[in-house]
Amino acid sequence: MKKVGTHLVLEAWQAPESLLNDPDCIRGALLDAIAAGEATLIDLCVHQFSPHGVTATATLAESHIAIHTWPEYGYFAADFFFCGQGKPTQAADVLRTAMQAQKVSIQEIERGFPTALSQADASLQPLQLSH
Amino acid sequence: MKKVGTHLVLEAWQAPESLLNDPDCIRGALLDAIAAGEATLIDLCVHQFSPHGVTATATLAESHIAIHTWPEYGYFAADFFFCGQGKPTQAADVLRTAMQAQKVSIQEIERGFPTALSQADASLQPLQLSH
Repeated sequence: MKKVGTHLVLEAWQAPESLLNDPDCIRGALLDAIAAGEATLIDLCVHQFSPHGVTATATLAESHIAIHTWPEYGYFAADFFFCGQGKPTQAADVLRTAMQAQKVSIQEIERGFPTALSQADASLQPLQLSH
Repeated sequence: MKKVGTHLVLEAWQAPESLLNDPDCIRGALLDAIAAGEATLIDLCVHQFSPHGVTATATLAESHIAIHTWPEYGYFAADFFFCGQGKPTQAADVLRTAMQAQKVSIQEIERGFPTALSQADASLQPLQLSH
């Protein structure tokens, strides 16, 4: 496999409803997470839903971070997709600490593609959609 | 488990280098994917790297879509995180078709949190960070 990046899938719960519904807090937590992850921010979108919930996406030179909150459940979902030399674990630690989540689960996914079927081999392989 | 959304993790390869390095094509493909997924766009960032590669993040009312391309490998990674009534599979189909990827793999992740440890039970549970 040709690995291009690491993707951490974070589920976090038992977090304070007030934090999960505060776009300014989430913006600050994301910027701190990006700094901790030694990543470079390209663009940041923070959006508050009515009556509650915040979604934010940070487009990075390293790929992206996203967070979606459900204050009514004390829960948020976050993703940290980092290629290159960034530090996604450090970024995740900072975000979950800032959001005061008491419970978290993290799944790590290696992003990439099978080298045996890479672009260089395209002419040797039959067409096959594997979905 | 309280499921809040579906997340499709897409790896796609054997795609034309020219498409993977074309931000206008990727913007159009994303907008078509969002329409096919019956999702609502909040914000779209499309960024071209030098010398090659495009990253795009679409912030949605349903959560997000992200795509990161490596034209030199004929590869792109994409994520489709949808809560609510959106159709992530249809969105993924449209994106991979538009990008002419000959090979794909898709991993489906249910996003959410254990109901036994939900916010309502916080006072009954000891603090435990499971990372």
